[in-house]
Amino acid sequence: MSYSSAVQELIDQLGRLPGIGPKSAQRVAFHLLKVPAEDANRLARAISEAKERVSFCPRCFNLSEQGGECAVCRDPKRESTTVCVVEDAQDVVAVERTGEFGGRYHVLQGAFSPIDGVGVDQLRIKELLARVTDEDIEEVIVATNPNLEGEATAMLIHRYLKPAGVRVTRIASGLPVGGDLEYADELTLGRAFEGRRSLEEA
Amino acid sequence: MSYSSAVQELIDQLGRLPGIGPKSAQRVAFHLLKVPAEDANRLARAISEAKERVSFCPRCFNLSEQGGECAVCRDPKRESTTVCVVEDAQDVVAVERTGEFGGRYHVLQGAFSPIDGVGVDQLRIKELLARVTDEDIEEVIVATNPNLEGEATAMLIHRYLKPAGVRVTRIASGLPVGGDLEYADELTLGRAFEGRRSLEEA
Repeated sequence: MSYSSAVQELIDQLGRLPGIGPKSAQRVAFHLLKVPAEDANRLARAISEAKERVSFCPRCFNLSEQGGECAVCRDPKRESTTVCVVEDAQDVVAVERTGEFGGRYHVLQGAFSPIDGVGVDQLRIKELLARVTDEDIEEVIVATNPNLEGEATAMLIHRYLKPAGVRVTRIASGLPVGGDLEYADELTLGRAFEGRRSLEEA
Repeated sequence: MSYSSAVQELIDQLGRLPGIGPKSAQRVAFHLLKVPAEDANRLARAISEAKERVSFCPRCFNLSEQGGECAVCRDPKRESTTVCVVEDAQDVVAVERTGEFGGRYHVLQGAFSPIDGVGVDQLRIKELLARVTDEDIEEVIVATNPNLEGEATAMLIHRYLKPAGVRVTRIASGLPVGGDLEYADELTLGRAFEGRRSLEEA
């Protein structure tokens, strides 16, 4: 005996989610079968509704719940001269949480990784170039992740935007605040030395 | 800026699933927002359909997709004199996979754990007692998990069924097949010694 078709279909669909292996999918499926129907259906509804109501901003590709441009692009108080380039919409929320950035965003929807089939055409780099040409952007802050793909993406953006004469900067790499020198990996520590700043500047 | 309401609702609902923390919930939510609408809706549909079509067998509390009794209870070829007691419906599938058991099941829908609010009344022990009284059951094999809760549940079942005069057995604990004596924990190894069998019996 294996699972009945409805149960198997549920396990299969759950197993396609990122970070959920076959065992977790099974556990989640049985959890859903056990809870009251309204709880399970609330999840089903949340999925359908999010898919229906949430779209991507046509300008910066951040999430937008109203259709059309996202909350940041529609906000007239945000500086239009600075654009922060991030990999994913989650990263917009992370940057917003710092409260340090008052400009606009550009979401690439991924990072350069040819081995995973993500090349220049899969990223929103052309759209970024168009924005740099059309809008009065002075600085592009590349805030992709400080890993292999993120760094490659940053180099790529730098190369594409150079002819447009815009200033392209990269967020600093170094020791995390509250971190411990002793436990830092050598790459991070190397970057921290490389990016050292005069204390007078601060 | 935090997430818009539809996204936040999706993250919240995903975060209520077992084994999915806030970070995973966020990752899964953004994955669902990124994939084509039909893929996400297939998951939503699988949840609603499973909830609609799958119910619990009124006799053994295994999953049943046809309404009414489950596939095992409806199968006239299964021995009705032996009942295997398991904690969850997943365990039925695990036992079926061994191909060693031809009797029927009884799913307790949990294990005795007063600290988690699971007492005798939350388990299907009364229903098991009624089956032992009404059906021609000769042996009850307790196949709850070999952990604290599972052992407590086994003792509890033994105590409840004793007056009914039915034979109650417990599946063996010991070294897993392919396991290594050197790496076995002392409890398991102790159990393996305790449950040793004469080679002549085999």
